Amino acid sequence: LNDELLMIPGPTILPPQVREALSRPSMYHRGEEFAAILDECTRGLQKVFGTTQPVVMLSSSGTGGVEAAVVNTLSPGDRVLAIAGGKFGERIGEIAAAYGASVDFMEVPHGQAANPDAVGERLAQADYRALLFVLNETSTGVKQDGHALAKVARAQGALTIMDCVSGLAGMPIGFDEAGYTAAGAGSQKALMLPPGLAFAVLSEEGQQAAQTAKMPKFYFDLPKAIKSLAKGQTPYTPAVNLVVALQASLRLIEAEGVEAFQARHRRMAKACRAAAEAAGLQLLAQEACASDVVTAIRSPEGLDSGLLVKALRSKHNILISGGQDALKGKIFRIGHLGAATFDNLRETWEKTALELGELGYGCEVDEVLAAIERECGSE
Amino acid sequence: LNDELLMIPGPTILPPQVREALSRPSMYHRGEEFAAILDECTRGLQKVFGTTQPVVMLSSSGTGGVEAAVVNTLSPGDRVLAIAGGKFGERIGEIAAAYGASVDFMEVPHGQAANPDAVGERLAQADYRALLFVLNETSTGVKQDGHALAKVARAQGALTIMDCVSGLAGMPIGFDEAGYTAAGAGSQKALMLPPGLAFAVLSEEGQQAAQTAKMPKFYFDLPKAIKSLAKGQTPYTPAVNLVVALQASLRLIEAEGVEAFQARHRRMAKACRAAAEAAGLQLLAQEACASDVVTAIRSPEGLDSGLLVKALRSKHNILISGGQDALKGKIFRIGHLGAATFDNLRETWEKTALELGELGYGCEVDEVLAAIERECGSE
Repeated sequence: LNDELLMIPGPTILPPQVREALSRPSMYHRGEEFAAILDECTRGLQKVFGTTQPVVMLSSSGTGGVEAAVVNTLSPGDRVLAIAGGKFGERIGEIAAAYGASVDFMEVPHGQAANPDAVGERLAQADYRALLFVLNETSTGVKQDGHALAKVARAQGALTIMDCVSGLAGMPIGFDEAGYTAAGAGSQKALMLPPGLAFAVLSEEGQQAAQTAKMPKFYFDLPKAIKSLAKGQTPYTPAVNLVVALQASLRLIEAEGVEAFQARHRRMAKACRAAAEAAGLQLLAQEACASDVVTAIRSPEGLDSGLLVKALRSKHNILISGGQDALKGKIFRIGHLGAATFDNLRETWEKTALELGELGYGCEVDEVLAAIERECGSE
Repeated sequence: LNDELLMIPGPTILPPQVREALSRPSMYHRGEEFAAILDECTRGLQKVFGTTQPVVMLSSSGTGGVEAAVVNTLSPGDRVLAIAGGKFGERIGEIAAAYGASVDFMEVPHGQAANPDAVGERLAQADYRALLFVLNETSTGVKQDGHALAKVARAQGALTIMDCVSGLAGMPIGFDEAGYTAAGAGSQKALMLPPGLAFAVLSEEGQQAAQTAKMPKFYFDLPKAIKSLAKGQTPYTPAVNLVVALQASLRLIEAEGVEAFQARHRRMAKACRAAAEAAGLQLLAQEACASDVVTAIRSPEGLDSGLLVKALRSKHNILISGGQDALKGKIFRIGHLGAATFDNLRETWEKTALELGELGYGCEVDEVLAAIERECGSE
């Protein structure tokens, strides 16, 4: 089991430095030592979020971070527009609805990004308090043009509340630059950590909105967490081992350089798409909005993608993902983020090409590997 | 830092088996392997909770587990009674209030347990929907007679919602036997895990209450989690490394035997109290309600307990806790739970006695150690 190659879009491969950090004794969470670690992590997270605002660390799944972004900025009865182009776009809308918002969904076909102008027009049709969207939709491998969406939302007087669970670190967020109001993210993606930590950030405007936001909250109260963070603490006992591991992972990213780290993600994504095309397969996402961290590939006509996923796991110890909900059986997804290397990608595609052949959908393994080679050179 | 002896009431000492489990690669959370681990953990948790109901694992601090117990059983406007005898008794009431309950606090002096008859009389005075309390109050080292409280609540037609964050595993819960409605707990106490996992359980009555409970929730939706658990999954990506570590810790408890494990906690607590008395110190909690997992000791008249805590840490690498809020400076607390041994307790008291002397409150080190010896024999 421990030799499995995790090429799913999270949980991802843990570097040895992260695994070592995880295995350290727990520590006291209200002392100077832990405060110093929290401080270093905050600065590292600010870099990957692209913000000067405090980034709060929450002990929860990424979904908890998204819930925090929603409930700290909205009130029951607020009308909001959620971009639904996949499972997680639906979820952020469902969160708002669970807390009493009036949620309209703007449907976008799987594989396409929302058209910012169309979103602006839709926002103009009613008094929307906020636009809710997912920066990188893990279920379809689509990235939105977040900056453009934030711009049209601002033009319509709407806040922007963003799920960047799988986007964080692997792609630029530019939180301040884009002018987002609130964002939530998770640890088990490009940050190379196990799941269990979430992150949330509020702009100045978001922090003001939090003063009047009436959705109830206790555990996910962000103003309280921001106040604690200023004192080097968290309101409730933090997941100390995960925070210590976060320190290790942020140091790895810092050593590579955030920009180089993200450029590598883009090359990996391009190589993955090239491999799929060389295998004669179709990509779910349009090229212009293809994700940097996960690629969704349509299953060949007649093949249940679940069979391919199973074969890779049982015969080669390689984990990729199938489709979720309506896309079940129709796509397979390869995660190429965090600590995944070009060698990992090569091995994944070599075995994918092999197993496609076994399932009766033969393709040229050499051509698939050559396509990766063209994108990544000697890396 | 890694050589610090954690004698605080959480986070606690991690056994080597738990640390090894933490450092394993992350794993896919929707496969048969992880389902088998979840299943084993569920059965182990049922044993320590004393329940046949599904025990849900949440990625959060213990406070999140308590919030889950509250918001899944209550509706805004419900009138509830919270027993406030310390920081965490106040917190469970604050959680209910944050979600719109009308909360009355029943004050109990620090160091005393609530009198069940008095609680029953108070409950009879209004149409209370629920009694909220903390089984083991970490801030004062007091345990409630939970079974008696549940009985008087039932007699008054009130649900019982319990925080057993620091009680779980180190003391018997008897969830089914007592007839509690809902409980929340955490991982970083007697379970010998890092913080970051919470547990929640609902009785049959609690699961029925959840069908009509109107406090909003999404991340902490327990019926959804119970449904997922039946399929060997969690609604949102679980903290897989912590769950794998939970498997390891539950196996350690199982190997020792749950009853023997808890009997050891009672002996450790008794030895700790005996040491305090031999040192001429007063205990905060009355003997009849003294906690099995944490002992709160009054600072000698004139001594700020913070100085003792500091000296133990800086000179001996031993961590104990001071008092919180109104008890700051007035008490110190020794956690003796999970993997802490009698040797750890001896070392802690040897150095405590030494430092009390240094601070001008001399006591006989030999007598303190002899008191421990009398309670623990050759262990």
